[in-house]
Amino acid sequence: MSRIWNFSAGPSTLPLEVLEEAREEFVDYRGAGMSIVEMSHRSRPYEEVHEAALADAKAVFGAPDDVRVLFVQGGATLQFAMVPMNLLRPGLKAGYVDTGVWASKALADAALHGEVETIWSGETEGYRRAPRPDEVRVDEHLRYVHVTSNETIGGVQYHAWPDPGVPMVADMSSDLLSRPIPWERFDLVYGGVQKNLGPAGAAIVFVRESVLETTRRDLAHYLRYDVHADRRSLYNTPPVFTIWMVGKVLRWIRREGGLEAMARRAEEKANLLYGAIDGSGGFYSNPVEPDSRSRMNVVFRLPSPELETRFVAEAEEAGLSGLKGHRSVGGCRASIYNAMPVEGVRALVEFMDDFLRRHG
Amino acid sequence: MSRIWNFSAGPSTLPLEVLEEAREEFVDYRGAGMSIVEMSHRSRPYEEVHEAALADAKAVFGAPDDVRVLFVQGGATLQFAMVPMNLLRPGLKAGYVDTGVWASKALADAALHGEVETIWSGETEGYRRAPRPDEVRVDEHLRYVHVTSNETIGGVQYHAWPDPGVPMVADMSSDLLSRPIPWERFDLVYGGVQKNLGPAGAAIVFVRESVLETTRRDLAHYLRYDVHADRRSLYNTPPVFTIWMVGKVLRWIRREGGLEAMARRAEEKANLLYGAIDGSGGFYSNPVEPDSRSRMNVVFRLPSPELETRFVAEAEEAGLSGLKGHRSVGGCRASIYNAMPVEGVRALVEFMDDFLRRHG
Repeated sequence: MSRIWNFSAGPSTLPLEVLEEAREEFVDYRGAGMSIVEMSHRSRPYEEVHEAALADAKAVFGAPDDVRVLFVQGGATLQFAMVPMNLLRPGLKAGYVDTGVWASKALADAALHGEVETIWSGETEGYRRAPRPDEVRVDEHLRYVHVTSNETIGGVQYHAWPDPGVPMVADMSSDLLSRPIPWERFDLVYGGVQKNLGPAGAAIVFVRESVLETTRRDLAHYLRYDVHADRRSLYNTPPVFTIWMVGKVLRWIRREGGLEAMARRAEEKANLLYGAIDGSGGFYSNPVEPDSRSRMNVVFRLPSPELETRFVAEAEEAGLSGLKGHRSVGGCRASIYNAMPVEGVRALVEFMDDFLRRHG
Repeated sequence: MSRIWNFSAGPSTLPLEVLEEAREEFVDYRGAGMSIVEMSHRSRPYEEVHEAALADAKAVFGAPDDVRVLFVQGGATLQFAMVPMNLLRPGLKAGYVDTGVWASKALADAALHGEVETIWSGETEGYRRAPRPDEVRVDEHLRYVHVTSNETIGGVQYHAWPDPGVPMVADMSSDLLSRPIPWERFDLVYGGVQKNLGPAGAAIVFVRESVLETTRRDLAHYLRYDVHADRRSLYNTPPVFTIWMVGKVLRWIRREGGLEAMARRAEEKANLLYGAIDGSGGFYSNPVEPDSRSRMNVVFRLPSPELETRFVAEAEEAGLSGLKGHRSVGGCRASIYNAMPVEGVRALVEFMDDFLRRHG
């Protein structure tokens, strides 16, 4: 097998040892005579997998005791609906910070299920930065302020967390597990798992017990956070394969040194890439303000769309895959999640330097 | 490897050749240098997998041209909410047929998101049968009548479909792909995939194009059938692994002879098991009226809870797994989905005969 450096934005590269361990166990799970994906979700072997994934998630994320971990299907996209449906009610309003495509999607869906307002938007500046903390202070009573910690398409990330004076809710889909989280500021944190945490098929949701006491009960069961929490994400059949793999990825992160190690690596990899961009004499360019540059999704342009097409095609041939920017914005993008080794980023930087020499 | 006969109600046994093929491709998908679960859902290899699964589902199920196939996360449980949210609105009412645990769950969730009424209930009879077709005729205008084609816990299945005079919506989670569907009676058919169709992680939804024209647009995107249909179940990141496996199971069913072959096998396997129960002189008993007995989930009692516990434990030792009845009702249950070979059912029947000789 010739393994490719996979810079896809999600689904995305996973640790090879996790994939190999899953393959080894896949048809006959530890001598059970069946696959883990054939097992009843009420069976002891699966319940052990499930409980370990919940416990390891809490431990590796460093979540406090009063935070519950849930696995809910539908990705972050279903969370765009569930957050306002569960947390808002007539008379309660939420504020949304608009940092780009994903924040806008969260806001648009929330507006259909509750009263919301935009409290800061980067739109007029072309979504080139996250707000400064002092720009998201709120005076009025808001149930929560919603932020998108990392814009996967725009390559914009918060590096100084807001402290708006009311609890925050965050979509951390594309940078969860890349750095410690200041839990005290958050009532709820969610994210699709298919970037830093495992294969697609679930969102992970962290929610405070005090919040669960006040969420709405007049919703269908699948849409209720309290139901998922009370039943330990086993109210109905869970996405067994995804949770099994998430457990393996969490143990891999722990073996590699946990969140602090992931944060150091993310910074190292991002510095390498932004260094190559900034040192290219303008051949490669990144539009994001330096203190909002994402350490997970590095977006860059070349002097022309033709060169960008050529760059992506030649990179693919060189074993560097998934570098095309999101179809809504064009350009190039390198997603450098936890499972992307520094070695892969070095290979990309070498390719970029070589491409610059040939075409710059 | 010593493969177990797995009678679990879902997740449940899958064809061994499907599991082995998945293992073979798992780490390096057909020379791509990465796993299918690491690939962008916008990449060509995944899009081919995805489109083939949609097309094969339509073909193998025998769905007409004007029916669209969707994969939606959250299982049948999220569909309990999405059906009324999308199809009802003020002034439109739905009728629900209550045949047991799963029908009751669908009804309870629907009542929170629309106006519904129970048009027939088996509760006073102890949920021992499905209604006769003439019992579910409706006179008033109802947007739809909801039925549960097979009660996984109660072991009750429709063998004569109702024709209520308005379109039907059906939860077919536990018997889809076990027999042809009279599509002309249905506006929408849904089911969790984790029984006859693949590993857990999605519901499959069949919905008429004419229905999609009138579903509600004032819902968050993930909750809208029209969004999933317009974007071919790629509005957001799909459950890649589950859909990949569903495609493999669909091709297996086609190789095995399609729905008609599955229906014949289901009848043969069910006859073997009910024969063993009915021929046991009352040692084994099934409470369901003969013309409503499920061909997927065969429930049976023994003379005492102690004997049932012993039966399940000895069966487990004999390599027959998952025979404990649902915790809400006790007793025993053998789920004999498509991937359970006749050979496995014969092994169970032999064990039942032997157990009867020893304990009867």
